[in-house]
Amino acid sequence: MINKKIIYFILGFLLIIESAFLLLSLIVSLIYGENDSQAFFISFIISLVFGFGITFFNRKAKKNIGKREGYIIVSLVWVIFSLFGSLPFYLSNAIPNITDAFFETMSGFTTTGASILNNIEELPHGILFWRSITQWMGGMGMIVMSLAILPLLGIGGMQLFVAEVPGPVPDKLHPRVKETAKRLWAIYIIFTAAEVVFLMLGGMNFFDAVNHSLTTMATGGYSTKQSSIINFSPYIQYIITLFMFIAGTNFTLSYFALHGKVRKVWENEEFRYYLGFVLGFTTLITLSLLVNDSSDIEKSFRDALFQVVSLITTTGYATADYLSWGHFCIVLSFMVMFFGGSAGSTGGGIKIMRIVLLIKNGAMEFKRLVHPNAIIPVRFNKRAVSSQIITNVLAFFVFYIIMFAFGTVVMAFLGESLDTAMGATIASLGNIGPGIGAVGPMDNFYHLHPVGKWVLSFLMLVGRLELFTVLILLSPSFWKK
Amino acid sequence: MINKKIIYFILGFLLIIESAFLLLSLIVSLIYGENDSQAFFISFIISLVFGFGITFFNRKAKKNIGKREGYIIVSLVWVIFSLFGSLPFYLSNAIPNITDAFFETMSGFTTTGASILNNIEELPHGILFWRSITQWMGGMGMIVMSLAILPLLGIGGMQLFVAEVPGPVPDKLHPRVKETAKRLWAIYIIFTAAEVVFLMLGGMNFFDAVNHSLTTMATGGYSTKQSSIINFSPYIQYIITLFMFIAGTNFTLSYFALHGKVRKVWENEEFRYYLGFVLGFTTLITLSLLVNDSSDIEKSFRDALFQVVSLITTTGYATADYLSWGHFCIVLSFMVMFFGGSAGSTGGGIKIMRIVLLIKNGAMEFKRLVHPNAIIPVRFNKRAVSSQIITNVLAFFVFYIIMFAFGTVVMAFLGESLDTAMGATIASLGNIGPGIGAVGPMDNFYHLHPVGKWVLSFLMLVGRLELFTVLILLSPSFWKK
Repeated sequence: MINKKIIYFILGFLLIIESAFLLLSLIVSLIYGENDSQAFFISFIISLVFGFGITFFNRKAKKNIGKREGYIIVSLVWVIFSLFGSLPFYLSNAIPNITDAFFETMSGFTTTGASILNNIEELPHGILFWRSITQWMGGMGMIVMSLAILPLLGIGGMQLFVAEVPGPVPDKLHPRVKETAKRLWAIYIIFTAAEVVFLMLGGMNFFDAVNHSLTTMATGGYSTKQSSIINFSPYIQYIITLFMFIAGTNFTLSYFALHGKVRKVWENEEFRYYLGFVLGFTTLITLSLLVNDSSDIEKSFRDALFQVVSLITTTGYATADYLSWGHFCIVLSFMVMFFGGSAGSTGGGIKIMRIVLLIKNGAMEFKRLVHPNAIIPVRFNKRAVSSQIITNVLAFFVFYIIMFAFGTVVMAFLGESLDTAMGATIASLGNIGPGIGAVGPMDNFYHLHPVGKWVLSFLMLVGRLELFTVLILLSPSFWKK
Repeated sequence: MINKKIIYFILGFLLIIESAFLLLSLIVSLIYGENDSQAFFISFIISLVFGFGITFFNRKAKKNIGKREGYIIVSLVWVIFSLFGSLPFYLSNAIPNITDAFFETMSGFTTTGASILNNIEELPHGILFWRSITQWMGGMGMIVMSLAILPLLGIGGMQLFVAEVPGPVPDKLHPRVKETAKRLWAIYIIFTAAEVVFLMLGGMNFFDAVNHSLTTMATGGYSTKQSSIINFSPYIQYIITLFMFIAGTNFTLSYFALHGKVRKVWENEEFRYYLGFVLGFTTLITLSLLVNDSSDIEKSFRDALFQVVSLITTTGYATADYLSWGHFCIVLSFMVMFFGGSAGSTGGGIKIMRIVLLIKNGAMEFKRLVHPNAIIPVRFNKRAVSSQIITNVLAFFVFYIIMFAFGTVVMAFLGESLDTAMGATIASLGNIGPGIGAVGPMDNFYHLHPVGKWVLSFLMLVGRLELFTVLILLSPSFWKK
């Protein structure tokens, strides 16, 4: 039997937390004295009442949480958050359409950053802050999920780095999860604060600095400017590049780095591949830009680096329109969208660890063909990877491609071209934000069909939760006892 | 030590066979009395002399052929055939460019059907016949390879259906390969002859009927008309659809069917999925065509069916321009290009068997997550599939996507748009012929960059030989003792 009461209890509790962040946005709104205060007040009260009510009526729930409860909670919380979180947008008339308001909020909590807004600069400060906060909360939730919860649920090869944090206990959420979570959040908050300082040193005002820091560390990509990061100074662009890169790194490694164990970072195989991919793609795109126009080497390098880091970490900020860079750069950018950040970061996508395991396993297959009777394991971080993890990563990849094909077919059915259909799908599934075609970095998602927006919202959730967490709920064997 | 002499001996012997087909084309050329006779005579002599010479000097080779010799022979024979096979095109001035001549010939032998020719109707009959014969030889070679040789080399999950033909003996080519090959070729020849008769009953002339039958059964797609099958009657289009479908079916099943064991065909899981995919995609595309123009239901159905069968079997004939059918149909057509025919057919692509295993294994992963300690195998044709085969199929898929990405990046680097780059790559890698973008069914490959033509030729070979056969030759562990 699924312990429904504990599910309600926890979701209610989390809703109270969301209401606290709504309260914070209400305060911002009151400080600026704009017309969105009422919307925040109503949203805050509704979330608080529902949160307390659900928690109160289920306060006697038994405290045992198994795997199945884990899957349900982890999937539902993003939906509940997006539903209640879209209230301020809708009530303040900032987004007067339910589909669009839900899309924008789900895009926020999943740290996707795909937007339907055409008038960002005209919005009140409270709304802009709430928009950024949804991403920051999503990023925070993701760190805990990917480093402490998902490994216990056996999702997507995430078991691989759980050895770095307190060990897993099968079928039961670990009591030390709380301890781990606290440390990781401390790092997350420290980095966010540090970025605020660095951005303000570059002349960015406090409000913009806070918002961009919130959405950088979440690899979210919501900006307070319609033109994203284009009009900021090179210094600010480099600072944001640096923090995007950090946000796309496994937070356990950042924990080590902050404790002086820099060697542990360098010894991490995923990190080295991550760095390698960033440098490789940046070099190719820089050279390609220089072939067309060699007048400003620094700008070509900066633009290439910024866009590569933004796309590989699935942040989605832009300092240039990569769709104007010619076919070669478009194809490379599109490819990078499939990579994703490191496991245990706030980044989405397939993730570096899986990409590396896929390639390594493929290479091993040649050895296996030559020596069919030898058992040749894939090695990662100098340890043999179990065949279960390899199978799981391979199944993940297959489902990723299936979901990508599904989204592309649906978007094409709704009238989008192949480019746009593929671009909107990978931008959502990979939690990136901008795609290719008509949803490039200089466009937004406003013009898409409403059905498409709901499907893309679903793909954001599926991508954010490492596919299996959501899809397993659709599997009959999950519900059978 | 690799037994080099036996490799030379066999390649020399196969070259003599090729020269016999060149002789046949010479005869055709002489019958029509056109100006390509001299080119065929020279090509025939060169191939014969080289063939005999190499065979003669290596006649004392030890007769042991191991796996490694098998890989080398199987890969090299297509290169050698294409080199010598391009002589008539080049010498007759039909294709006065070495890159183009090689591309056209490799496209023939790999049964791809991608063409660089703009003036097909102006070419002499001998040349057209030779073009068709390259595909027919390629198809014949593929049947033997996929049903008798590759399984012994352990390539790509092909072991799965080898139980249907005489059993494999590890590390040694089976003596009964010859027996199997004879039976399969008999079927291949019977079907080809039958198609000639059926096409002539529909009013097609003998020469066209022979050529189209040769390239249908090979799932090749070279036509004697620049406009492919568009201007032929509905009857002829249905006949070709039927024979394409048969050519995309495992030839072992055709063997059973011809021996009255129709139940064995129906019980075959791959066949049912193959039929299911064809009907599913045809229905979707027919409906989509009818939404735009409901005036002719029969034609909409026929066009949809023909294009789906042509693409899924990787034949590549066209009776309509699917690129003019709107975004939804383009995306569906593009998707079908990744499917491919049945294992053990002359079709290319990923192949139905692998697609089904990929999806089944993905579904199993959910069960494994719910019951982490249970061993849950994937079942195919009511038998459990070994985890080695699953891993191999998954590795195949990963490499297929890697090769697809590689080709797309190269073509984009050479200046092609994303559509064209992806289209040309999948059309070559999947041995289909036409793609999307600027290499659609109404265009050809003439306008591509020469480097692109060589890369695509390489991809045709890689795709035709189930990836591993070629790629393993690039792996260092293959050459280490």
